[in-house]
Amino acid sequence: MGTVTADTLDELVAALPGGSVVTDPVAIEKYREDFARDGSAGTPIAVVRPEDAGQVQTAVRWAAAHRVPVVPRGAGTGLSGGSSAVDGGITISLDRMRTVSIDPQSQVATVEPGALNVEVKRAAAEHGLWYPPDPSSFEICSIGGNLATNAGGLCCVKYGVTTDYVLGMDVVLADGTLVTLGGKQIKDVAGLSLLKLFVGSEGTLGIITRAVLRLIPLQTPKATLVGSFPTMAAAAEAVVAIRGTVRASMLELMDSTTINAVEDWRSHGLDRSAGALLVAQSDAPGESGAAEVALIEACCAAAGADEVFTTTDPDEADLFVSARRNAIHALEHRGSVLFEDVGVPVPRLPDLVKVIADIAERHALEIALVAHAGDGNTHPLIVYDAADPGSTDQARAAFREVMAAAIRLGGTITGEHGVGRAKRFALPDQLGDDVLALTWRIKDALDPHGILNPGAVLPPRA
Amino acid sequence: MGTVTADTLDELVAALPGGSVVTDPVAIEKYREDFARDGSAGTPIAVVRPEDAGQVQTAVRWAAAHRVPVVPRGAGTGLSGGSSAVDGGITISLDRMRTVSIDPQSQVATVEPGALNVEVKRAAAEHGLWYPPDPSSFEICSIGGNLATNAGGLCCVKYGVTTDYVLGMDVVLADGTLVTLGGKQIKDVAGLSLLKLFVGSEGTLGIITRAVLRLIPLQTPKATLVGSFPTMAAAAEAVVAIRGTVRASMLELMDSTTINAVEDWRSHGLDRSAGALLVAQSDAPGESGAAEVALIEACCAAAGADEVFTTTDPDEADLFVSARRNAIHALEHRGSVLFEDVGVPVPRLPDLVKVIADIAERHALEIALVAHAGDGNTHPLIVYDAADPGSTDQARAAFREVMAAAIRLGGTITGEHGVGRAKRFALPDQLGDDVLALTWRIKDALDPHGILNPGAVLPPRA
Repeated sequence: MGTVTADTLDELVAALPGGSVVTDPVAIEKYREDFARDGSAGTPIAVVRPEDAGQVQTAVRWAAAHRVPVVPRGAGTGLSGGSSAVDGGITISLDRMRTVSIDPQSQVATVEPGALNVEVKRAAAEHGLWYPPDPSSFEICSIGGNLATNAGGLCCVKYGVTTDYVLGMDVVLADGTLVTLGGKQIKDVAGLSLLKLFVGSEGTLGIITRAVLRLIPLQTPKATLVGSFPTMAAAAEAVVAIRGTVRASMLELMDSTTINAVEDWRSHGLDRSAGALLVAQSDAPGESGAAEVALIEACCAAAGADEVFTTTDPDEADLFVSARRNAIHALEHRGSVLFEDVGVPVPRLPDLVKVIADIAERHALEIALVAHAGDGNTHPLIVYDAADPGSTDQARAAFREVMAAAIRLGGTITGEHGVGRAKRFALPDQLGDDVLALTWRIKDALDPHGILNPGAVLPPRA
Repeated sequence: MGTVTADTLDELVAALPGGSVVTDPVAIEKYREDFARDGSAGTPIAVVRPEDAGQVQTAVRWAAAHRVPVVPRGAGTGLSGGSSAVDGGITISLDRMRTVSIDPQSQVATVEPGALNVEVKRAAAEHGLWYPPDPSSFEICSIGGNLATNAGGLCCVKYGVTTDYVLGMDVVLADGTLVTLGGKQIKDVAGLSLLKLFVGSEGTLGIITRAVLRLIPLQTPKATLVGSFPTMAAAAEAVVAIRGTVRASMLELMDSTTINAVEDWRSHGLDRSAGALLVAQSDAPGESGAAEVALIEACCAAAGADEVFTTTDPDEADLFVSARRNAIHALEHRGSVLFEDVGVPVPRLPDLVKVIADIAERHALEIALVAHAGDGNTHPLIVYDAADPGSTDQARAAFREVMAAAIRLGGTITGEHGVGRAKRFALPDQLGDDVLALTWRIKDALDPHGILNPGAVLPPRA
């Protein structure tokens, strides 16, 4: 990478409208890290806040000419350090590009990357439409970040993840070229699936400046079940059985540590004595929702649930769903947290639960476990004391061991958060040398000078 | 590309089990073309019929060493010439690799590429599970071809297309390396979305030797509606309204020409006087199916339907659905057929219908129109006399004009059949120079010597 002089940076300032290039160190500070706070963040020479794709192109062309690293950034709520700033680079923050427009006839939203997920949902709802993907952070995370990580959420057990809703995209490539992929057509197989390649690429292949997202009719009222189990293993058995019976629109699990952390933080009326809580929903229309919940209830009973509560009252249901969504906040009140995001084939969930308990015990750490259980995607939240080097080392070791266990069980180091910088060292263990080499071939073809989000996803070359 | 001597070919024969390399001209003949019969097919020097991935690797390594073109082939039911043989090349037919194994707990099928779509569906059904993607040809097309084209079908209006069900894949790359991507985990964002890049790549980036496909619980009994409309435009209006109201599990349209061609071929009890027939289904569970069909009925009435028939009897419903599925067969009894597959944003369907009628009139051709209307994906079937050069020219001109119209209406030249060789000349008109250049960068990175399915998808370099 080149070294940027003051004169060189002046070129960029001059090429963009006043106020677009932030160089004040205090103002820059809040763009350095994401929610992972993984210690990888450097200090950028500037933060660029473009108002449109043209300005993104200007910044990337400048960066390409001077070989300056470019880190794209949405709302900064990432949990893997994917938008950590790079020393000597620029961070392109998309927070000023946030228009959302709905085409109700085509059932699509055309969205700029800085728009929040919740803003897309709200705009769609005004037309009786729904944008399903719903990360727990949907009220504060940006669509750009969702696209960059191929974000999941709670409803994806039935409705799929971000990539399933992307119909079109504008992307600024590493040389500043703006390409438009796809459009408002629902099915399109003309040429390679480039659209899908950019989804989940975490800013390493291009910068998304606009997306066309598929919408569907608003979800019908939901029936909810909360099941209390003696152990996570029993709850996980129930999940496997439920998946074979109905298509639940939510299948979430919380372990005892999480339940108590949530209750300590703010009472949600959870049963503190439960070994595990399962929150399941059906959005089947009319009477079918209750019928599906009855089937779910039978699976819970067969798997040894201690107690089952069902409701069609949205407020009652929201209490349990928000308990699940608030798990991370609650845990953060107990110490620093390393956010895990491992996934396994669903029947291996009980094995993963056991291994994580062993790891927690061995390192004398609190590891709370919440899971998008219906997808086999778990978030072990490793609580530690950042001021204590011993505790920090234990936490880091546990973090590595959890990923290794997921790989051993035929799973993944990340189901929905992305690799970012926090997990890149473990990527080769999952992919193997040949897939890693294939990945580099794509990366080199699209970003020959390596200026796009260097250090994210891919570990240094062997 | 190199020229292969008899000695060189002997190397390949020696490296594979007896009977794997077919060189008899009569036997080769049936591997030359696919259902498009578009005239692009050359004559391969051999057809290789591997029994496992290792034999695919052997053949590809040999081809890479001698710079011999490799055309992968499934069941040969493609409609765009994607598996047309290449002069001097080898065709790798996957028709002997067709094991299907179901893991009911994980709800996945592990499938070799030569297995037919229907075989996967049947194997899944034995465990109460369902593999949704359902091209009209599902009884005769292979999963490998489905993956290569990202095939759609009738239920994808609610359940999505092939790519939405691919969790894992083994691929033999252009140098013979075998890579394994993904697995049985449902969510996985570790590294680039390479899996999705291979889906729909039509054999130009690698040869898929195994896939892990997601299954879901078996579809519940369906409620069916058949609506008769005075015009295709009125039926298309109904489709737009229905999509905003319910998530139908099928939304298919047939025009008057198709209705009469189907009835001429074999009576299905269709109303020959109808301007258009809409076949819609709901698979909402229990009473909700009938309730959704009632909502669909109201949309039909509002859009001016002449008559609406509803049924929950599967045999009655199958008559109409099979009429739709048989459209291509029926039309083939009227002459040679060019298979179109254009798609537009759903609200532009009425415009597309009108343009196609104009094109048919101008060229004095019969163009029958069937559509996966809920996805805006249409199959204009251009009937012509292959023995008459004038008729053939008119048909080819119409074929080009239909694609140009779809692009003008913000759509695609192919929604689900693939570009193959029949449509590659039109690809640049849809993608534009920059996206085409991006496509070549990926192609060159993965297949530097251009041995994989040369001539398919990508037009010759400018």
